[in-house]
This record gives sequence, C-alpha cells and structure tokens, in this order.
Amino acid sequence: MVGGGDGAFIGAVHRMAARLDDEFELVAGALASTPARARASAAALRLPLERSYDDYATMAARERARADGIDMVAIVTPNDIHVVCDKPLTTSLADAADLVARVARSGLLFALTHNYSGYPMVRQARAMVAAGALGAVRTVQVEYAQEWLSTALEATGQKQATWRTDPTRSGPAGCLGDIGTHAFHLAEFVSGLSCTEVAAELSTFVAGRRLDDNAQLLLRFAGGARGALWASQVAPGSQNALRIRVFGDAAGLAWEQEHPDRLTIARLGAPPETIVRGGPGAGPAAAHATRIPGGHPEGYVEAFAQLYRDVAEQLQARVAGRAPDPRALLVPTVADGFRGVALVAAALDSSRRNGAWTALAALPASSEIQEHLHSDP
Amino acid sequence: MVGGGDGAFIGAVHRMAARLDDEFELVAGALASTPARARASAAALRLPLERSYDDYATMAARERARADGIDMVAIVTPNDIHVVCDKPLTTSLADAADLVARVARSGLLFALTHNYSGYPMVRQARAMVAAGALGAVRTVQVEYAQEWLSTALEATGQKQATWRTDPTRSGPAGCLGDIGTHAFHLAEFVSGLSCTEVAAELSTFVAGRRLDDNAQLLLRFAGGARGALWASQVAPGSQNALRIRVFGDAAGLAWEQEHPDRLTIARLGAPPETIVRGGPGAGPAAAHATRIPGGHPEGYVEAFAQLYRDVAEQLQARVAGRAPDPRALLVPTVADGFRGVALVAAALDSSRRNGAWTALAALPASSEIQEHLHSDP
Amino acid sequence: MVGGGDGAFIGAVHRMAARLDDEFELVAGALASTPARARASAAALRLPLERSYDDYATMAARERARADGIDMVAIVTPNDIHVVCDKPLTTSLADAADLVARVARSGLLFALTHNYSGYPMVRQARAMVAAGALGAVRTVQVEYAQEWLSTALEATGQKQATWRTDPTRSGPAGCLGDIGTHAFHLAEFVSGLSCTEVAAELSTFVAGRRLDDNAQLLLRFAGGARGALWASQVAPGSQNALRIRVFGDAAGLAWEQEHPDRLTIARLGAPPETIVRGGPGAGPAAAHATRIPGGHPEGYVEAFAQLYRDVAEQLQARVAGRAPDPRALLVPTVADGFRGVALVAAALDSSRRNGAWTALAALPASSEIQEHLHSDP
Amino acid sequence: MVGGGDGAFIGAVHRMAARLDDEFELVAGALASTPARARASAAALRLPLERSYDDYATMAARERARADGIDMVAIVTPNDIHVVCDKPLTTSLADAADLVARVARSGLLFALTHNYSGYPMVRQARAMVAAGALGAVRTVQVEYAQEWLSTALEATGQKQATWRTDPTRSGPAGCLGDIGTHAFHLAEFVSGLSCTEVAAELSTFVAGRRLDDNAQLLLRFAGGARGALWASQVAPGSQNALRIRVFGDAAGLAWEQEHPDRLTIARLGAPPETIVRGGPGAGPAAAHATRIPGGHPEGYVEAFAQLYRDVAEQLQARVAGRAPDPRALLVPTVADGFRGVALVAAALDSSRRNGAWTALAALPASSEIQEHLHSDP
Repeated sequence: MVGGGDGAFIGAVHRMAARLDDEFELVAGALASTPARARASAAALRLPLERSYDDYATMAARERARADGIDMVAIVTPNDIHVVCDKPLTTSLADAADLVARVARSGLLFALTHNYSGYPMVRQARAMVAAGALGAVRTVQVEYAQEWLSTALEATGQKQATWRTDPTRSGPAGCLGDIGTHAFHLAEFVSGLSCTEVAAELSTFVAGRRLDDNAQLLLRFAGGARGALWASQVAPGSQNALRIRVFGDAAGLAWEQEHPDRLTIARLGAPPETIVRGGPGAGPAAAHATRIPGGHPEGYVEAFAQLYRDVAEQLQARVAGRAPDPRALLVPTVADGFRGVALVAAALDSSRRNGAWTALAALPASSEIQEHLHSDP
Repeated sequence: MVGGGDGAFIGAVHRMAARLDDEFELVAGALASTPARARASAAALRLPLERSYDDYATMAARERARADGIDMVAIVTPNDIHVVCDKPLTTSLADAADLVARVARSGLLFALTHNYSGYPMVRQARAMVAAGALGAVRTVQVEYAQEWLSTALEATGQKQATWRTDPTRSGPAGCLGDIGTHAFHLAEFVSGLSCTEVAAELSTFVAGRRLDDNAQLLLRFAGGARGALWASQVAPGSQNALRIRVFGDAAGLAWEQEHPDRLTIARLGAPPETIVRGGPGAGPAAAHATRIPGGHPEGYVEAFAQLYRDVAEQLQARVAGRAPDPRALLVPTVADGFRGVALVAAALDSSRRNGAWTALAALPASSEIQEHLHSDP
Repeated sequence: MVGGGDGAFIGAVHRMAARLDDEFELVAGALASTPARARASAAALRLPLERSYDDYATMAARERARADGIDMVAIVTPNDIHVVCDKPLTTSLADAADLVARVARSGLLFALTHNYSGYPMVRQARAMVAAGALGAVRTVQVEYAQEWLSTALEATGQKQATWRTDPTRSGPAGCLGDIGTHAFHLAEFVSGLSCTEVAAELSTFVAGRRLDDNAQLLLRFAGGARGALWASQVAPGSQNALRIRVFGDAAGLAWEQEHPDRLTIARLGAPPETIVRGGPGAGPAAAHATRIPGGHPEGYVEAFAQLYRDVAEQLQARVAGRAPDPRALLVPTVADGFRGVALVAAALDSSRRNGAWTALAALPASSEIQEHLHSDP
Repeated sequence: MVGGGDGAFIGAVHRMAARLDDEFELVAGALASTPARARASAAALRLPLERSYDDYATMAARERARADGIDMVAIVTPNDIHVVCDKPLTTSLADAADLVARVARSGLLFALTHNYSGYPMVRQARAMVAAGALGAVRTVQVEYAQEWLSTALEATGQKQATWRTDPTRSGPAGCLGDIGTHAFHLAEFVSGLSCTEVAAELSTFVAGRRLDDNAQLLLRFAGGARGALWASQVAPGSQNALRIRVFGDAAGLAWEQEHPDRLTIARLGAPPETIVRGGPGAGPAAAHATRIPGGHPEGYVEAFAQLYRDVAEQLQARVAGRAPDPRALLVPTVADGFRGVALVAAALDSSRRNGAWTALAALPASSEIQEHLHSDP
C-alpha cells in the first residue's frame, strides 16, 4: 500500500475492505511521506519492518526482487503524486489521457475505487435500468452533499481539509473533484448513459478558500436525457448525502447512500416498491455483491466485529497485565447467556400457566465476577 | 472454529467479523458434522487440511499440542451440542447455571455473541440511559420481527428452518429462543434494568410446527418500569426488524437495527434529535465502536470490499485462463477515471465561461479495451 | 352542539369537520357549563344569542319547538355527563348496555367519533383485510403513544389534563379510556376481528396521578389471532403516535396516524408496496373518503384555508380601521404573481438561448405598496 | 366564484378552504364556461339559481346591484382569461406588469394562491431563516416533481391535462408555469432572497406535447446565494413532491410537502432537530397557521369530516327512502362505544387480578341492529 499511514482516513477503509473477503493480505507498504511516519505506521499494522519502504519507487524495486513480492498495489495517497487509483485519476486531462493509453497498452487491470458502485442496490439499480425496467431514461437527478467544509477547517491544519482545498495538491477542482466525480460516476453507472455536455456554476462560499466548495451542474446525456448534479461541502446537516434518482418513461427509481440497503422503484400505475438487499425483487447483480441476508444491514458485520475487537482488547490487556479499556467490557458474557435461558424458561412457564406472571431465575452467586462485566465501570 | 461450514450462515459472519479489524486469523476448524463436509469447507476457506478436524474434541487435543495452536475458539454450531457461544447459551436452565459456574471458576473470558450490542448507536443509547439522559426509565418497548418462517419452510428441508423448529435441537423454545433472547438482551443492555417477571403468550401459527413462532411478553423490571416484548417469525414484510424504544420521565429514545446508524432522542419540551454514528452528539461509547465517519453507513466497507473481491475474481480468472464472472467486470477502470477528469475539465471551463454548455472530452480510441469493462455483457 | 366552548379542543375540530363538506351548519348550542361562558362562546361563533342555551335540556326543549330546530346534536363535552357521542361511550358497562338498548329501540342513528376510522388509508386497510389480501390474520400490533402527561400537568390546572385524570369525570380508566379505546377500535376495525380476551398491566407513573397513564395489554381474538396493545401518555417524543400493524399468513400491513396518507403492504415473496391516498392501488373504500389527489396531504386544504383566513383578517382589519396581524400579511400578492411570470419569461428566454444566464424582470416601481406585503414586518 | 364547476379540481379545494374557518360563504358563481354546466354546478352546490351566472361579467354587474352582493370573488379558472388569482398571474410579462399597476392603484387586496406558503412549517421555515437561524444563506435546492403527465394524457381529452398542455390556454410555459412557479415562490418565500438570474434547460419528453414537461434551472440570488430548481411532470413515482432545502453558513433546513407537518433543521455541530407542527420549537409564525395539536396531521380534520359526511349520507338516504352508500355505514356506532367500555372494564379487572386473562362483555342481543352497521355489506 502506498499512503494510508498515520492520520489517513481512506487507507484504513481500503485495508478493512481488502481483508473482508480474505482475498488479499497487506504485506508491504510505503505508508507515509516521511520514513519515520511510514515505519511507525507499518509497525502499528504489524508489517515486517524490512517491508516498510520510504517511498513507492523503492517498494516497487525491492518487492519485484522478492519471490513473495507484492501482487497488487493499493495507492491511497492524496492526489499530488502522478499515479493514483483513488479518484480523481489525475489533475489534468492530458495526464488522464496518457494514463489511459499506458494502461491500455499494459493490458493490466486498473481499478478505480468509485466505491459507491460496489453497493448491492446500486448494482441492482444499474441492472434494472439496463434491463429496461424504467423504459427510456428521461431525467437523472444526482447529488452529493456534505457539511464538513462549511467553515474554514483547512485553516486549522486538519489534514483532510488541507490537501483537499489546496490546488497544488488537489488540482483545479475542490468539491467537484472530491465528491462531484463520485456523483457523476454514479449517474453514468446507474443510468447506463453517457453525459455529453455540462453547464456548470462553481462557487466558493468560505472566505479564503482556493477551490470550489459548491457545484451546480446541468447535464445533457447522449440520447436526449437531461439531468442535474449538485455537489456541496458546505451543506449543514449533510454528512455523505449521496443520492440518485433516475426517471424513465415507464418508471423511476431512487437510492440514497445513507440507507444503502433500500432501492425504491415506482412503475407508472403501480404502488412504489421498496427492494431491500437480500429481499424479494433483488436480482443476481445485487446477489453478487451481497454477503448477508436482507434486513441485516451490512453494518451487521461491523457490529459483530466489535465484539471480536473488544475480546481482543481484553485478551491483550491480560497479557500486558494492564486494565482493559472499560468500553471493551461491554461484551456479553455467560451471565447474559444465563439471562436469556432464564427468560425462555420463565416465558414457557408463564405461557403454560395461561400467562401468569412468572419470575426469572436469578444468577448463581458464583457468577458475580462475570456479572460485573455487564455494567459500565 | 467449530461449525460454520458449508450451508451455514452465521459462521461466515463470524469469520468476516473476526477478520475485519485484523485481530484474529482462522487457522483451524471442525467446520461440519461430517468429516467430508468439514474438509470441503476447510478447503474452501484455504485452511491447511491437517488443521481441518472431524470434531471439536480432536481439534482441541491436536491444537493444544502445537506451538502455533489456536488461542481462541469460535463455536457457531446449531444449539444441539453442549457448549455454545452463540445464544441461547444452553437449552436448559440447569445447564446454564452449571456453565456459568464453570466459567466463573475458570476465570476465562466467555463471550456471547449478542451481536446487536456491538452497534455503535446501541452503545450510545446504553451510555445515554446510564448517564441519566432519559431520567428514570418507565417503559421499554422491544420487538424483533421476521417473516421467513411464515410458511412451513422446515418441511422443505431448508437447513436454517429445520434445526430452528426442532425441539430436539433447539430446545423447548423456537422464535422466543432464536430472536426473542436477542430482543431481551437488548432491552436489558440499553435500559440498564433487570427484568424480574414476565407474562407470556407463546403461539404457533404454522400448522405442524413444533415450536412457538410468535411470542408476546409483558415485562416487569426491577424498580417498577414496565415493558413489552414481541418476537415473531411469521410477520410478512419484516426481515430483521429489531427495534427498541425506551421512555423515561425526561426523554425517550428509539433505535432500529435496519437503520443502525441513527438514534433518535426526544427530550420533553425540545424537538427530537437524531444522533448519527460519527456525527454531533455521538459520544465515546459510540466512538469506541465506530470505524468510519458518520454518513458513511458501515456497509460502506462492504461496498469497498466488493471492488476488491471483483478485482480478485478478474485476477484469478486470468491465472486460470477462464472468463471472469461478468458481474466482476463492473469495477470502475481507468476509463472511468478519465471520465471524472473530463467532467472536472468541462465544468471548470463552463463555469469560467459563465455557465456555457461545454462538451466532455472523449476517451482516447486506444482505451476501447478498457471501455468495454464498463458495460454489462 | 353541547360543550365545545371556550377552552375546549375537540369541539373546534368537530365544527371544522362538520363544515368541511358543507353538509351541516351550526345553529344552536349549549357550549359551556356556565351561562356566561356559553354565551361568550356562542358570540365568538356568531350564533344568534337566543340560540345559545344554558344547558342541553333547555336546548333540546326549545329547539324542538322551532320550525327550523336542530336536526342533529354533536355532544363534545368531557365524559362526566350521562350521554356522550365522543368516546368512551360511558364510564360504566351497565350504562353502556342501557344506552345500546335505548339506541336500538329508538331506531335513530348514533355516531361515535372514533375518528381515526375516517382516514382514507384506514378504510383502505380494512377493505384489503376484508378482501383477503393478508390471508388469515395472525397478529395485530396496535399502539397509541403520547407524551403530554409525562409530568403532573393536571396539577397546573390545565383543562385537558384535569378532567382526563379525574376519576369522578373520566371514570375508572385514564390513558386506557382516553386513547387506548381508540387503538382498540382501530385494531378491530382494520382486522375485522373481534377481541375476546385481554391480559392487562395498567400503570401510573406520575406521582399523585389517580388514573393509569400507561397500559400494556395482550389480546386474544376470535379465531386464534393474537395481539398486543400499548397505550401511553408518558412516552416522551410521542405526540399522537397511533400505529397499527396487522400480519396474516399471506401479507402484512402497517399504517401510522402521523403519516396518514401512506399504507404499507408486504406480500410474502414480493417487495413491500406503499399505497398512497389517491395513488395506484388505492381502492373504492379509500376513494369514498378522499377529497383531493394523492401526494397532496390532506393538510393541503388547511394550507389553502390559511390564505383565506389571512385575507379575512386583512379585510376585517380594514373595516375596523386597525392594523392587521402582521402574520396575516404573508399572503402572496399580485407582486408574487409578477415574480412567477418574470421567472417563466426569463427561463423561456434562457432556454431558447441555450441556457444563457438571464435576468428576471424587475417589478414596476408603482407596485412597491404591494411589495412590502411580502416581507415580515 | 368564477370557474370551479363540474370537472374542475382546484375549485372544490378553494371552497373547502374558504369554509374551513367559517370566514366566507359561497353565495354566487359563474362556475363553468357554458350556462347549462354552470347552472348544473350551481345546483349541485345548492346555490340559488338566480345567483348562478353565465359569465363573470354578468355576475359582477348583477351582484354589484344587490344589497347582499358578493364581497370577494375567487377566480379559479384555467389560465386563459385575463384576470386570475390562481397562479401564474398572467401569460405575458406585460399583462402582469399592467395588472400589478392596476392593483396598486386600486388599493384593493389581491391574493394569489401560492397555497404552499400557507403550511405552518413553511411559515416556520421562513421565520427561522428571517431570524438568522441559518446564518447567511448559501444554497437553495427546490424541486417539484409529478408523474401524471408521463404519458400523453392530453390526447385522451382529460380536462386537467388538456388545458395545461395547450399554449393557447396556458401560455408559453407548461410544467414550468404550472408547478415550477410554485417551487420558485417557495424558494423566495422561505429563503427571503430575491432571485436575480436563471439559466434554464426546458425539455419536452412526451412526443407531440406542445409545452415543456421538465425544467432544470440554475438560480442566482441577490447577495450571492446559488440554487437549483427542478420541476417535472414526467417523474414516475412522484405525485406532488414539492421539496425545499436551504443551507446557510450556520445551519440547513429541509421541508417536504408530502410530509408537511415536519421541518428538519441541522445546526453545525449539533444533532439535526425535527420540529413538528404544534410541537417543541414551533414558534408564533407556525402557531398562526396551526389549528390542531401537533402529532395530529391536519388530515385529522378530514378524517373527522368523513364521519360527518357518512352520517349525512345515512340521514339523506333515510329521507329519500333509498339504501345508503354502503361505504357510509362504516361510521362507528353505539355498539362500538360498548366495545370500548367493555375493553376498559375487562382491562381494569385483569389488571386488578395481576394480569389474568379476562373476557370482554358481549353486546346485549337487542343491539344486533346496530351491530351490523359495523360490517362491510
């Protein structure tokens, strides 16, 4: 991995994502722009120090020489080096065209993490449009609103804000490049249409900011569809409010990133339907990107992971002979298991006795040690 | 891992969860009830065959003998063996009491995966109640509704339905034990109250079913609070509709598992507030269980992971000289990156020219190979 | 009208409701418990003073003698007189049975304002259940939660709270009689089932309160369906949260009074549908109770009425030579009309000129008088 | 009233709205474009025939001569006569300017039914922006989407569609004039800002349609705020989806016409709040336009009115010796009242007996006549 060290945000997401399906292992990295921070970050991630490199060029050279060298590199740096695989691809059109040509010649894969296209219901939406469920597409409304740059956060030195608002690092576009391009990709990805022309109004509302923080675009698509794109980082109340609506001559659909498991489709003359990931109406395109049953939001895995993480903290604290983070003590224990069994026993008894009120069995005294685990310190 | 092989559901969730934060690695397993299925499952998970065991006893013995033996076991079998760490703890109160005592004596950790307590906003809710934000708790309304057993699914031999409706495997409770205990744990976990008495009405609506599929309970809590618990597996339209509302003399709160990132709190005399994971009002209890910024639902990681999984499929297909799953071809490519850069260039130009309509630059011809990756076959 | 004078709430609702379809006119009343307040209330409603009576008996006698005497009486008093047509019908079962018999003998109509049964989508829900859309009903979950009695409001002398918490006026039930009976009627009305048995837990959480303020009931219905009813007036965050869910062996439905125009129905194996008043899927039962097209919430009429009311205030202020309520000056004027026409003209021009930015025409100077009407004083 | 006769939609809304607060009475009308239809419409509304006029000029002349002549005229015709008080004001800018001048000279009131500005929470939103709750306004996103013209409905002769898509009757704008002007008024009304420039893209998607059915506008406001307006009548799934969001440097707010009783406001650094009509946070501007308590949607009055209308139908059927509309038989009766009292009695008894299941009292036999009123024929 190049970039993604201490203080970064997206690098950790890439690592979690790469681990989730156990298809990749992180074995080497040039994780930060200074050797010291790179090594510290590598240590934190338990990378062998000899595979923590000071820069990506060195990493490329050394790893190429290893029998067990890296198979793929995830580049998750800010936008100011000349190869990126997070968007935007480059900061100039010429560089982009050049890179496209190089990749085409190389015959290698080049994946760009327009990650929103990985949501099951976005895949479902694209498949439904492609299958003609909407008829001919007429209008595409897409927006991505955030609030976090409503003030001059970059003036505080906050890392995320600083490079995103610096034209020497982000290139000539701010909000438009940072999140507008995600909304734009989503619009073309779901609608299956190619945008041919835009009319744009870029604004900078925060005094002293050097790049746009609000963008209003009108869109014309090949074939005559029309649309609008709004991207803003100065919209209080919006966190990552990426939302798309596509309307055809037969139906319309709507999807919101903050409720990613639901896709609404309304066919003319029929009640609107809500298709839920893993539920009725979700097809193979969604199934391909679905790990767990419908109704369990995908955060379900993170909630499960939290228990594992808290257990790890308790184990590590024991080994280190220190007190664990008290918040890691909320993991349910055998005592909670007893409570559940006691509920079942009492409820069965009550039901057999025509609903008579029935007391729950108390925990054996000896489990008091366990019991305290269940309360906040 | 014991159990969780081919055909299981929760095992895969445990594996993803254990991997997510990279604190655990799966190294050995007794993954199924027959050696053949156990080995097949182990192979699918890339376990060294010598560490795929026919039963958990053998695994315990052999691993104990290894220098690199297992540190922790995740037991994710159906409820019909005598040690479980998924709920319900046991199928009889006596066994539960015995197990509590054994664990207390052992001094070992015993984690029970009441996984819903791992959600950041559930942790937040518990912390707010504990901090007195609700005042004295008066009423707790908790429910867990599903639809999947609305018909006699067990008669079709479906694995999940079969063991869950078989008293010899699940014990004397059906819906109540399977999901009612989750709702019950959530009620005590969030309210911080201990339930002392229940009045229950258990029903079996599907003809021929041997265990309850709908449970209505009234609850009395220590200190005088009252509540109701509804658990149903015959509620069409409900997938995993776990929902809790707690009302005190100063405020009330509400949380729904299907929208886990939001917690609503209403204080008397003030407009209701929505606290979002990672957003304003979310405190340290939630932060401890939060991996990514608010507004990005936790499924955000899974969406990212989907791109990694699809890239892996493309790489593996190349190695194997086969065609990749066409659905894995939806990964955005350098061509999409070019589109984004073209958007930025056109929008900047349009904005400079007072919003004049401006065409997007076309892809270099040589990138046609890449381009096709972007369309469904 | 008997009752419904100064300080009452429901009387005004009855009057607005009776007027809405222009089938009734209020011509006489015994509007309050003292002659003075009755007359003052009559004057406020522009009733001829000779038709403002001191008590309902006098009104009945006098009106009977008039050629143009009343055709129907709306009785909207607190529950402490012996004939009521708002619910609860009486405060004792014997009185209720007696009244039923009297009404049956009289052959007259007797309408009880279980007003929630008048919502179009409640009519739709009942019709769908009756038509078998849900199959055999298994479970009914109904609840009515409010927050307004979370504190001892009656101790402040607030009129609504005082009589509702006084057993000598409300009878032996508080929350249960006041709103629980509405939820109960809705459960039977929508499900078409008759409740045969209840198991109840009534609580009083506010110190010193003489009647229940929280009620938990389990319900058994003829034919085997089961249900739960929760009524509470001590649930912070709840205003008039009347909600019903009915689940059958083929489908489930859900309706909420705070979003009355939407009915959700989920059939096993199909995506849930949202039926909107006046929209696709809404049948004759809903149409019978529908006045305006779908998507316009019924409050649409009230919003329209607000403009009429504000115009009336302006007219009356002119006649009286006084300044109007400044809030009545928000009615859009001809100046706003001009703005709309200017928008249309500018937009047509811009569109013809390929989206060029186009200025809106300014108001003629002479309209300044009108213009100021559009701004808050 | 001029217009609003048989086949019209908005006329009936105006009548209901004018009646609701009992400040106006309909006494005369020129209700349709042919004398016969005008008279038939007048009869249906119970107007004295001598006050049903063939045209508005005759009505104006005759009513002026009456001692009890009309005080105000509500003009609710299609847009093709030269005076309107529904929007758009005129079909040409010159006519609008002329009308503004005439009204200014006349000194008379001129109310334009931009009815959405009558919603309590729209008044609240405007007041909050005016009070500085949002800080300096930066962005205004407004939209009004409908689906009803997604097909060539005008080709079927449907009255509403026909005049709205006929340039000789609606003027040069279709969707933009019909609903875009409402969205535009709302944007200026709530934001308190004046729009100075627009860049527009008007489209006609339905083949053969003579006016725009989709409009995308970018907006520039005095003071530097930016915005976008989308109006569409070809958006499947949208009924009257009028929605506005305003973002300032301190907070943002959102309101949707289909859920008019709720206003969301998000202040930077604080959890978003939901202000409900009649609830905490709703101020005097909203109170002025509020008739009933929060939580009761304004449709609550219509639901009440439905019972009155059904009773009227039953009374009229008796007088006419005909069978009533069976749908009018759903009015709850004394039998339902008995059920409620029986519930209270049984619940009190059960609660006293520690929740024992308790049967509800049965209706006296003599009430069978009433009982049948409660079931659909």
